[in-house]
Amino acid sequence: MLAYRAQPTISLPTSCLSWNRPELRSGGSNKSLRVGVKHPKCTKVVGNYNIGSGNPDSDKMHDMLHGRMVAEGTVFQQELVVRSFDVSGDSKMSLVALANYLQDTALNHFERIGVLSDGFSTREMSTRDLVWVLYKTDIAIDRYPCWHDAIQVHTWMYELGKNGLGIDWSFSDLKTGEPLILASSSYMMMNKKTRRLSKFIEEAKKELKPYFMPEWSPMIENTKKLQVINIDTTDFTRLGSSPGWNDMDMNQHVNNAKYFEWILEGTPSWIMRSHQLSSTNLEFRKECGMDATLKCLSKMVGNYNSESDNSATGHNNEGLIEVEHSLRLDSGLEVARARTLWNTKHPDN
Amino acid sequence: MLAYRAQPTISLPTSCLSWNRPELRSGGSNKSLRVGVKHPKCTKVVGNYNIGSGNPDSDKMHDMLHGRMVAEGTVFQQELVVRSFDVSGDSKMSLVALANYLQDTALNHFERIGVLSDGFSTREMSTRDLVWVLYKTDIAIDRYPCWHDAIQVHTWMYELGKNGLGIDWSFSDLKTGEPLILASSSYMMMNKKTRRLSKFIEEAKKELKPYFMPEWSPMIENTKKLQVINIDTTDFTRLGSSPGWNDMDMNQHVNNAKYFEWILEGTPSWIMRSHQLSSTNLEFRKECGMDATLKCLSKMVGNYNSESDNSATGHNNEGLIEVEHSLRLDSGLEVARARTLWNTKHPDN
Repeated sequence: MLAYRAQPTISLPTSCLSWNRPELRSGGSNKSLRVGVKHPKCTKVVGNYNIGSGNPDSDKMHDMLHGRMVAEGTVFQQELVVRSFDVSGDSKMSLVALANYLQDTALNHFERIGVLSDGFSTREMSTRDLVWVLYKTDIAIDRYPCWHDAIQVHTWMYELGKNGLGIDWSFSDLKTGEPLILASSSYMMMNKKTRRLSKFIEEAKKELKPYFMPEWSPMIENTKKLQVINIDTTDFTRLGSSPGWNDMDMNQHVNNAKYFEWILEGTPSWIMRSHQLSSTNLEFRKECGMDATLKCLSKMVGNYNSESDNSATGHNNEGLIEVEHSLRLDSGLEVARARTLWNTKHPDN
Repeated sequence: MLAYRAQPTISLPTSCLSWNRPELRSGGSNKSLRVGVKHPKCTKVVGNYNIGSGNPDSDKMHDMLHGRMVAEGTVFQQELVVRSFDVSGDSKMSLVALANYLQDTALNHFERIGVLSDGFSTREMSTRDLVWVLYKTDIAIDRYPCWHDAIQVHTWMYELGKNGLGIDWSFSDLKTGEPLILASSSYMMMNKKTRRLSKFIEEAKKELKPYFMPEWSPMIENTKKLQVINIDTTDFTRLGSSPGWNDMDMNQHVNNAKYFEWILEGTPSWIMRSHQLSSTNLEFRKECGMDATLKCLSKMVGNYNSESDNSATGHNNEGLIEVEHSLRLDSGLEVARARTLWNTKHPDN
């Protein structure tokens, strides 16, 4: 069904190719594009495209793309650019994209220090079928990065109590150093086969301890317990949310970012339109697979049942709207619980 | 609800900071993190985090993060790393992530040559309320990039007939130059207010022509018309698909990648498990907003109605499974039509 057209080869002048990559040569390790030749009956390969390639995998390029350790090996640092698909309709980074980058940079940190094994685990954990599972995430957003903004992420980890792993993140504007977002997450060890929590095994402590931030505690703490929502008194319910193929992680479970998406889908739309998320606390209570169908419940803290209540005097003392959330399976089992705080949208925020 | 803990300042030794960024100094333009100070009543800012920042916005860093023009200004080149959230359960780049990167690099190309205005349009288009809208996309995948793979993307554009804009993409392995993916898309000009198609106005041709690949035609062509699926003879139907807040683009319409996700959701799950997408042709027929509810229909070309038919002899001449797809609103209106070709999953492919 696909035909490839004959086209002249594009030759790159050497000057175009020398950008920060002296080892890149026009015609060096060039390969013609041969996509589709594996199914000749439905494609017609009648030419090639040849733009030149080389071996740009220098240490600097690798560091730039994959990040690096700083602060005597205790802090992982990586740059990223907010892409068009990382932003919501207002051109600002979405909560889902943010949740994705939190997980991604934590994995990159593990990989960079050489302890990443199968899934989010170390080698010693992997041989015992143990993985880190996310227990809770607290996020505070000072300013939302916009499309095309270059960001610098710092992330570090530490022991959390006797059995937990804590990870902190800081997102700042790469150019100005302006702080943007802070996040803290707590992880527990779980046996993949029994799905039961485990204590923090000594072998994994030995692997990780050299990279821990010493005597550290979470940068952000949720100081107010998340509430149980009574299903009969909920202010807003979205039924029938269900994960798709694209929402599964490498362990065939719904990825963490999807929970944040569901929380937002269960938020009254007038809040989404007129307000922006200032902070959130999310507790993960149960794993969720491909076959799940969920109810997303939300309840306003205070009396904000409609858009007409959305006046300056209607906000709480801090000028924020507070919403409690609960994600439940059809069976009634709660898979996650959250609080979101929202402030009025400003053009420059 | 959030408390920020007092913590000692992290100081970076100068040696850690000199990575490819001679202008970055410890203590230079450092700023303390002040996230949360805007709502003091529900947060407790009792300390700060200070890891050092600087001005790393050199030309090289900018080029690395934002891409650059090569081949005498006709080809846009950018590197990217496959992130953990770009991959499906098999650790390979998802079709949705691929569709996102196609759109993103095309936008970056427009921005890099200085013609990007509001949405996907040039300045001359923008003053006339015109935008480029995607009409069709053809994708051929030779090898799927995996998590952490570094990729080099090349993209270029050209006149397509009298009124169209054509864009081609090539994804290759950054290290080896191995070709991975080819894609071609066609765009038409549309008036944002009337939602009617427009001819390619001369003013925009003048803006874009210097950057067009001369005398070029799409690298990939769909040589077999996409079929109308009769709703009564469909092999598989998924009902109730609906876009969420996170699926809206900057024009408050469902982003293009979501259509690809719906196509996959409407594909029988046994195909998704045992096969991988080799190529796809997607035609966009109608815009779709937040309130849409869709049916995702699919029909096997040939007799492959169940997993038990999935034998080597059951495939077509090219060893591929062919599926026709249709996305319809509840009203019956068709928003997109597609074909997918699938080959058997191999461990190394």
